[in-house]
Amino acid sequence: MKTAIYPGSFDPIHNGHLDVIGRAAKLCDRVVVAVAVNHAKTSLFSMEERVALIRAASAHIPGVEVKAFEGLLVDFFRAERADAVIRGLRAVSDFEYEFQMALVNRSLDEDLETLFLMPSQKHIYLSSRIVKEVAALGGDIERFVPEVVREALRK
Amino acid sequence: MKTAIYPGSFDPIHNGHLDVIGRAAKLCDRVVVAVAVNHAKTSLFSMEERVALIRAASAHIPGVEVKAFEGLLVDFFRAERADAVIRGLRAVSDFEYEFQMALVNRSLDEDLETLFLMPSQKHIYLSSRIVKEVAALGGDIERFVPEVVREALRK
Amino acid sequence: MKTAIYPGSFDPIHNGHLDVIGRAAKLCDRVVVAVAVNHAKTSLFSMEERVALIRAASAHIPGVEVKAFEGLLVDFFRAERADAVIRGLRAVSDFEYEFQMALVNRSLDEDLETLFLMPSQKHIYLSSRIVKEVAALGGDIERFVPEVVREALRK
Amino acid sequence: MKTAIYPGSFDPIHNGHLDVIGRAAKLCDRVVVAVAVNHAKTSLFSMEERVALIRAASAHIPGVEVKAFEGLLVDFFRAERADAVIRGLRAVSDFEYEFQMALVNRSLDEDLETLFLMPSQKHIYLSSRIVKEVAALGGDIERFVPEVVREALRK
Amino acid sequence: MKTAIYPGSFDPIHNGHLDVIGRAAKLCDRVVVAVAVNHAKTSLFSMEERVALIRAASAHIPGVEVKAFEGLLVDFFRAERADAVIRGLRAVSDFEYEFQMALVNRSLDEDLETLFLMPSQKHIYLSSRIVKEVAALGGDIERFVPEVVREALRK
Amino acid sequence: MKTAIYPGSFDPIHNGHLDVIGRAAKLCDRVVVAVAVNHAKTSLFSMEERVALIRAASAHIPGVEVKAFEGLLVDFFRAERADAVIRGLRAVSDFEYEFQMALVNRSLDEDLETLFLMPSQKHIYLSSRIVKEVAALGGDIERFVPEVVREALRK
Repeated sequence: MKTAIYPGSFDPIHNGHLDVIGRAAKLCDRVVVAVAVNHAKTSLFSMEERVALIRAASAHIPGVEVKAFEGLLVDFFRAERADAVIRGLRAVSDFEYEFQMALVNRSLDEDLETLFLMPSQKHIYLSSRIVKEVAALGGDIERFVPEVVREALRK
Repeated sequence: MKTAIYPGSFDPIHNGHLDVIGRAAKLCDRVVVAVAVNHAKTSLFSMEERVALIRAASAHIPGVEVKAFEGLLVDFFRAERADAVIRGLRAVSDFEYEFQMALVNRSLDEDLETLFLMPSQKHIYLSSRIVKEVAALGGDIERFVPEVVREALRK
Repeated sequence: MKTAIYPGSFDPIHNGHLDVIGRAAKLCDRVVVAVAVNHAKTSLFSMEERVALIRAASAHIPGVEVKAFEGLLVDFFRAERADAVIRGLRAVSDFEYEFQMALVNRSLDEDLETLFLMPSQKHIYLSSRIVKEVAALGGDIERFVPEVVREALRK
Repeated sequence: MKTAIYPGSFDPIHNGHLDVIGRAAKLCDRVVVAVAVNHAKTSLFSMEERVALIRAASAHIPGVEVKAFEGLLVDFFRAERADAVIRGLRAVSDFEYEFQMALVNRSLDEDLETLFLMPSQKHIYLSSRIVKEVAALGGDIERFVPEVVREALRK
Repeated sequence: MKTAIYPGSFDPIHNGHLDVIGRAAKLCDRVVVAVAVNHAKTSLFSMEERVALIRAASAHIPGVEVKAFEGLLVDFFRAERADAVIRGLRAVSDFEYEFQMALVNRSLDEDLETLFLMPSQKHIYLSSRIVKEVAALGGDIERFVPEVVREALRK
Repeated sequence: MKTAIYPGSFDPIHNGHLDVIGRAAKLCDRVVVAVAVNHAKTSLFSMEERVALIRAASAHIPGVEVKAFEGLLVDFFRAERADAVIRGLRAVSDFEYEFQMALVNRSLDEDLETLFLMPSQKHIYLSSRIVKEVAALGGDIERFVPEVVREALRK
């Protein structure tokens, strides 16, 4: 397996995401973190900010590239000549949604294989939404996100 | 069982819905597809469009009627002198929600029986939301919806 | 819908089963309770006892027949010229197993449609295994089973 | 266990909530119903109305206090010198979300213990959202909420 | 809350059990670990061994008593004049089963309240079955069980 | 990713297993199908038969090796200098169990990464147990297993 795509909103990246990127990087030569343009949801951080935060937070992991993408994941997948899509799985609700998306993507391109990885148990409850909620209420998010994200959220 | 109600938003109807309608029509003399007026969510297609698309897509299935309804399902159920409500089940997340709604409806009318059908495995991942997302991103939805809906989405 | 099959082990029949039979009987002209010969599991009651208990407990519900069956459900289904198989759904773990069996049966016979019904909330926790466990430990099973079963378990 | 916190939006309080409060009050000297200020979601009832409705509906249960709270639950928990947080569990989808929140809260304060209680089976399908939907559609919510809430919703 | 019962097979006790006992002991004056006589399943350790291992492993936690019990949990619950039953929850499959047992117990005695606690994330995958399997295959179970159990399993 | 282990009982191999092997072989240079010696469960086919059936059924897929293994998966994983363990995911009940085993394995060896793949929707209901049950009842298992297994089951 040479190239894996790790797609998501990453608004912002948290330690669970970083854990998955690190695990994927051990298995592939190249991990492309694919940051989705999201027209429906308003994101807290702009695309440029999200890409910059991921780059800063994953700089120590070899083989990681960060790219914005718009449109269908299958098109990005083909353009990157990727071998698989990587997704983290935390719990059953995740699984339902992820299972559905993986089937949709496979129905659009039979070659798009989705591989599911488990993040470390430490991060099993983490989501970008929870990071933003705790930060907004003045809670300490030191355990949840890398230092660059913590600073960015403080602003 | 003479009359079954198949309620939903159908925004728009997709092949999973059609599969359920076909299966229900084999079991009942009359299947009333009940298109819900949804004040909260903004629908992509108007009520008239949704009804017209279902009629066109289900024209080949005998015993199907398509009606708009507003208000409580129990009232529509009684007005149609129906024997049961039909719902399709795809996955666990579906089941939780469907189970809850079936219990609510039964608590409002002890005679409202909900019957759950499984659509074909081919359609296990399909939802109106996914059809709209893939279409909006320029993906091919040929496998997902009948031809009339495909044309309507192209506009 | 004329004939529905309601298959199971019924070792012994409990109030949740009876609730499903009653609901099915309102929707169909004929409900065939199909008692499975189970070679793998040792049953507490013999086939003759299980059939007799179901007959006694469902005598007041019109249109109910009780039959033993051996072999594949699809063969019994065809022999009875049934329209559908009825199953009760209590919770998610039920759903997983039931979903799997319904797909297996459909793969063996495309015409075998499985309809899922919800028993009354009162019976949501009931299973034959629990009835036997509580009875074996000397607990009162009055709420769980019809009177004939209670007497049979006392012996 | 002296003090338990029962946090939520209570927009409005329903019979499932009241059932949990009653059960918690049997186990603790003091149950603090903590009504969350919700900046994101627009609530049907104002904070003052929600607090007043809970007070009226729980007046017959000894040891219950009703308080508004803003900010992180962990801060409110410490300020109240509480022993545990109480949450009702209805179904699997509840469980996923509740499990996640309990882990987040424990990560913010190792002493914040979350205890889960089951409401009565009668209320297993109830949620504030469903109460509001049924009331908005003109349905009878007598089974769902205490009389004071029913009157408040009529307006 | 004065007395809580923590029932189980404890064949053998592991770190997830101990974690739950420690959390329960902070909330109650007295935690009675109730070791079930299991006629159906053959246990690896005898009742005497299981009780002795729990006593040794929980000696440092104040307020813990260990007792064997036979028969219905509701009868033991009444005899101990307990306020609640405590159960640990690890995942959805747990939840289904636990939910069912809690409803059965409540149907046998309306006063039997079941409280669910989450063990530490560290122990989220632990079960007695897994401890025994890993030990039988020669794996290191240092992370899974207290030292006394490790020694007992070595024999 | 060079080497992936695909462990299981394979009693016998079915089309869902073969589908996963084919997908894994596209991503890795070498897929080691690891057939577990199972002391607890009595298998229908002997270890030699299971290995021979997998070899025959997967002969057309390049890079596949079939090996028996006994003891802990982590030891086999290290001996094979594997990069990851591959598991197929069919449904939620699968996921719970697979999640637990993946966490146990990771706790025994931090380097043991488990990757989850989805088999084709066509095989979503398949399990070795179901294949054996249908075959034992005289059903047609042509859709479920490769031809060599069908012949082996006929005997």
